[in-house]
Amino acid sequence: MLFVVGLGLGDAKDITVKGLEAVRQADRVILEAYTSILTIGKEALEEYYGKPVEVADREAVEQGAAEMLEAAKSSDVAFLVVGDPFGATTHADLVLRARDVGVQVKVIHNASIMNAVACCGLQLYHFGETVSIPFWTDSWQPDSFYEKICANKTRGLHTLCLLDIQVKEPTPESIMKKVKQYLPPRFMSVAQASEQLLKIIVNDSEKVLSNDSVVIGLARVGAENQQIAACSLEAMKDTDLGSPLHCLVIPGKLHPLEEEYLEQFFVK
Amino acid sequence: MLFVVGLGLGDAKDITVKGLEAVRQADRVILEAYTSILTIGKEALEEYYGKPVEVADREAVEQGAAEMLEAAKSSDVAFLVVGDPFGATTHADLVLRARDVGVQVKVIHNASIMNAVACCGLQLYHFGETVSIPFWTDSWQPDSFYEKICANKTRGLHTLCLLDIQVKEPTPESIMKKVKQYLPPRFMSVAQASEQLLKIIVNDSEKVLSNDSVVIGLARVGAENQQIAACSLEAMKDTDLGSPLHCLVIPGKLHPLEEEYLEQFFVK
Repeated sequence: MLFVVGLGLGDAKDITVKGLEAVRQADRVILEAYTSILTIGKEALEEYYGKPVEVADREAVEQGAAEMLEAAKSSDVAFLVVGDPFGATTHADLVLRARDVGVQVKVIHNASIMNAVACCGLQLYHFGETVSIPFWTDSWQPDSFYEKICANKTRGLHTLCLLDIQVKEPTPESIMKKVKQYLPPRFMSVAQASEQLLKIIVNDSEKVLSNDSVVIGLARVGAENQQIAACSLEAMKDTDLGSPLHCLVIPGKLHPLEEEYLEQFFVK
Repeated sequence: MLFVVGLGLGDAKDITVKGLEAVRQADRVILEAYTSILTIGKEALEEYYGKPVEVADREAVEQGAAEMLEAAKSSDVAFLVVGDPFGATTHADLVLRARDVGVQVKVIHNASIMNAVACCGLQLYHFGETVSIPFWTDSWQPDSFYEKICANKTRGLHTLCLLDIQVKEPTPESIMKKVKQYLPPRFMSVAQASEQLLKIIVNDSEKVLSNDSVVIGLARVGAENQQIAACSLEAMKDTDLGSPLHCLVIPGKLHPLEEEYLEQFFVK
């Protein structure tokens, strides 16, 4: 059996009781480590579960999936995902492959940023399409996500912006080599996302967003040291919300209760 | 301290370990029972927690909030919400009132239908605005949610339709009386939602949705007996997915992996 277990957002104890039981009974425990991160490390999980945890990056999951599914035919494998199992496309793909080879799958849901973002007081049913903001390079500065933000905002809807995570990116020099070298992991901050957005809106003649537009920065949602700040896009560029993960919310039309709730997060 | 604890979607063991610890240490445990339901009853929760659980309907929460917050000043109160604490507006309001009177609040997140809906294989970041479909009466047949479905679909986005829940609705005859009598609880099924949609689209000259459009019905997401069915809107009208809760998904543009995943749910 393959258990695909959502870990939620904060620390080891954000797993559900059902999820913990699956981990405790599993013969192998594998932690997916490329679409999100917990605020605690693998060691803390191992101590809490009382058993070893294998950490799998994208390559390991993609190349090792067949072997993992083979193991799941005759034993119990728990595949752990930060947030909810269906937060990322790749996990739907894994479930599909499991079914193709006749492995029974049990999905154990949990909170993800896609619903926990409502902790900033903006109602989930006033959110439009979610966007991802990628790290720009000198030669690659995509801005198609901005159109989606505008389409949402024009309809009065909020936008959740997921910010880029780069773990195990090969260095440009090593891409052609047999032995790859990797850059240190990078997690986009709300400041970096705002800086990119400020560059994009210079060219927006319709001024859907301006330097003065209120945006909301969220850091480590669900963790003990969660932080939320609301300020202008311009000010967010200089706002340090500390360690990852961050996400940014662009409000659409604020309803009175949303406005009242947001009040507490305004940076004076 | 006021703990606002998400219970997740299935049974007693879908609570997180952190949530369970809060419940076990709480002096009072109150279950909110009007925005959603678990597949198990209050008795099963009481047995699992090893302590009594008070069930609060909308009236009890609204009228009893002051008293509950007063209690939370000097003791620990756990307020349990099916799904995630911020799934419904009223809970943001409660957190706000708690802060106003100086009660410390701790929110413990969990899965909600807003993220778990991805179990049907449709990616969360391809969803647009969520809509609610209310029960029609002879004289009240609102259809504004259909415009939102169309706005999503036109942009290629999926729509999650939450279906009406009516618990403790006073009978029309008793509304003016001092002692109210209540109708039995009603939960809209995917069949009923489809029937209302079919009536609406008769007047849609642009035919964004037709009788043949594929829709996805989901029942009891996250529970052991979860059920998912994909078929035409016309066929969904006659599809029985059993006991509540149900929700309906109107797909926008399907991506290849989404199509592949959905395949398994097609009713032949």
